[in-house]
Amino acid sequence: MVNSILTVDLDALVRNYRALQELSSNETGAVVKADGYGLGLGRVARSLAKAGARQFFVATASEGAELRRELGDGPSISLFAGHMAGDSDMINDLSLTPMINSIEQLQRHLQALPKAPFGVQLDTGMNRLGMEPAEWSALRDIVLPQNPTLLMSHLACADAPDHAMNAQQLQSFREMTDDTGIPRSLSATGGILLGADYHFDVTRPGIGLYGGLPYADALPVAYLELPVIQVREVAERESVGYGNAYIAEQPRRVATLSAGYADGLIRAMSGKARTFYGQTECPVLGRVSMDSISVDITRLSDTPASLTLLGRQQSVDTLADAAGTIGYEILTSLGARYTRRYSGG
Amino acid sequence: MVNSILTVDLDALVRNYRALQELSSNETGAVVKADGYGLGLGRVARSLAKAGARQFFVATASEGAELRRELGDGPSISLFAGHMAGDSDMINDLSLTPMINSIEQLQRHLQALPKAPFGVQLDTGMNRLGMEPAEWSALRDIVLPQNPTLLMSHLACADAPDHAMNAQQLQSFREMTDDTGIPRSLSATGGILLGADYHFDVTRPGIGLYGGLPYADALPVAYLELPVIQVREVAERESVGYGNAYIAEQPRRVATLSAGYADGLIRAMSGKARTFYGQTECPVLGRVSMDSISVDITRLSDTPASLTLLGRQQSVDTLADAAGTIGYEILTSLGARYTRRYSGG
Repeated sequence: MVNSILTVDLDALVRNYRALQELSSNETGAVVKADGYGLGLGRVARSLAKAGARQFFVATASEGAELRRELGDGPSISLFAGHMAGDSDMINDLSLTPMINSIEQLQRHLQALPKAPFGVQLDTGMNRLGMEPAEWSALRDIVLPQNPTLLMSHLACADAPDHAMNAQQLQSFREMTDDTGIPRSLSATGGILLGADYHFDVTRPGIGLYGGLPYADALPVAYLELPVIQVREVAERESVGYGNAYIAEQPRRVATLSAGYADGLIRAMSGKARTFYGQTECPVLGRVSMDSISVDITRLSDTPASLTLLGRQQSVDTLADAAGTIGYEILTSLGARYTRRYSGG
Repeated sequence: MVNSILTVDLDALVRNYRALQELSSNETGAVVKADGYGLGLGRVARSLAKAGARQFFVATASEGAELRRELGDGPSISLFAGHMAGDSDMINDLSLTPMINSIEQLQRHLQALPKAPFGVQLDTGMNRLGMEPAEWSALRDIVLPQNPTLLMSHLACADAPDHAMNAQQLQSFREMTDDTGIPRSLSATGGILLGADYHFDVTRPGIGLYGGLPYADALPVAYLELPVIQVREVAERESVGYGNAYIAEQPRRVATLSAGYADGLIRAMSGKARTFYGQTECPVLGRVSMDSISVDITRLSDTPASLTLLGRQQSVDTLADAAGTIGYEILTSLGARYTRRYSGG
């Protein structure tokens, strides 16, 4: 086994898409930014297109251009970053649809590509991307006659269903978009779970497709196996790894595995994450190195060829807990050195 | 500006190499694993080869194969992971030199490639990679007649010069290797700074080449500019970003920048990291998103097109402090979405 193996279960991806589609009232799009949440843009997007997705969302024009090459003509590709300086040619040549975020972007778009489709992103309180209510009031009579493809916004607290921010953003979105007659989109995975009031015409699931919270019923999509480089006996009081951060209180059998923080095993997992051999936990000892981790295999009766970091035993969210982060960052940190294998799709 | 721009100063890289060479007593190799610490294996390695480096070190055989394609014949390429199952063809076809870590790897190597060069990695106390003293005692009379290219080990605490572990590992390394007549290597960047006793025949600087601690005199090599997507006024008591994690105590001017944790802006930087416009600090507000961050530009009189995350104003180590990690992880996390530009070299 030369490299660590990242296996992407495209059938599970498609089943997650279909399940989120069942929960959505109307059309279900798909968010495939950040290289399909780290799992491989082309394979992920083509599987979702085959499953019926017709509206795809990415962050930037460069991502959109790569996605267009993968999908060919047909599906719409929307850009959350909107129409940035330098993007006009890509937007035009590859039929990308910028979600216009500001008057500056609107001017740029109408000047450079007066006939090219665009949507509008509205800020309903997150203060990250999109036009403010006052800006939108001033511009809507110019924008609406141009028939934007979509009016969209994004929820800041959708993973906390009881947060008052959700209803506030919903109300603000309604105030800005009711009676426009233009297709609307407010919800990603978290918003889908908030119920039909939040669904409007198009939902935009991302993390739920890839097996992460807040969609608790998601099937795991990413499986990660780390090969053992070598195994050693560590005596009482000996240390393991950088800074002598782990000191054995009793004799331990320790395996060095071929993946480290350069592969997305976030360094904050040091001393906290667990790997698995079947159902047996093998905890990480001491610091995560750049290219390796050390794990305790004292409980195993045999010497494994590899151990599992992501799979049925451990989700991206459980691993995220060990790093003090969220499943999204586990996925997007998965590194370039893995051999990626795809099943199904 | 379509993408965020990562500029790699190859002249600074070469000057760091030369400065570390001045500090080393003998030959100075170069560690270029993890895609040249995230900065681009090919450009980095070719610049170092042009500057005179003849011994390169990577983690795995796959990395070695890629490096051989970049460097052509001539320089030696050593593999820290040694000779793993499935690696024999790559090792042989591309003239890679595994650093043998165990009796298992030794058997594999001598069986598959009895005439192919190899080195030996010895464990002097880190308990991560390499043969234990007892294992080495049992094997050295078999190994030494085969003329290994190198006997090497690695220091666990070299970034802490006063740590007793350094002298312990040095003594252990001497006990295992004195009077073998084989070239020896113990030190990476930290060990070079510990002085000539630690240098032996070949040093193996990594992080110091790329501008990071513990080599405090290193020139910065990575410069990162993040383009502004849009700017907004945020009123008192309004929130910014996910989870409403930042709430404005007074009116703020906020810029949304096009890079997030999918680009290596580690999510643990949320609310802690700073960006710069010239010398003016613009702190990150609230949570790092997957594709963007929000920063406070209230103090700026104009509206910038981009802000600086890495450069003369802020080193990889200062940014690492904001994420509770080390400069190494900042570098190896730099994402695939940046446009990489190279100066000099």
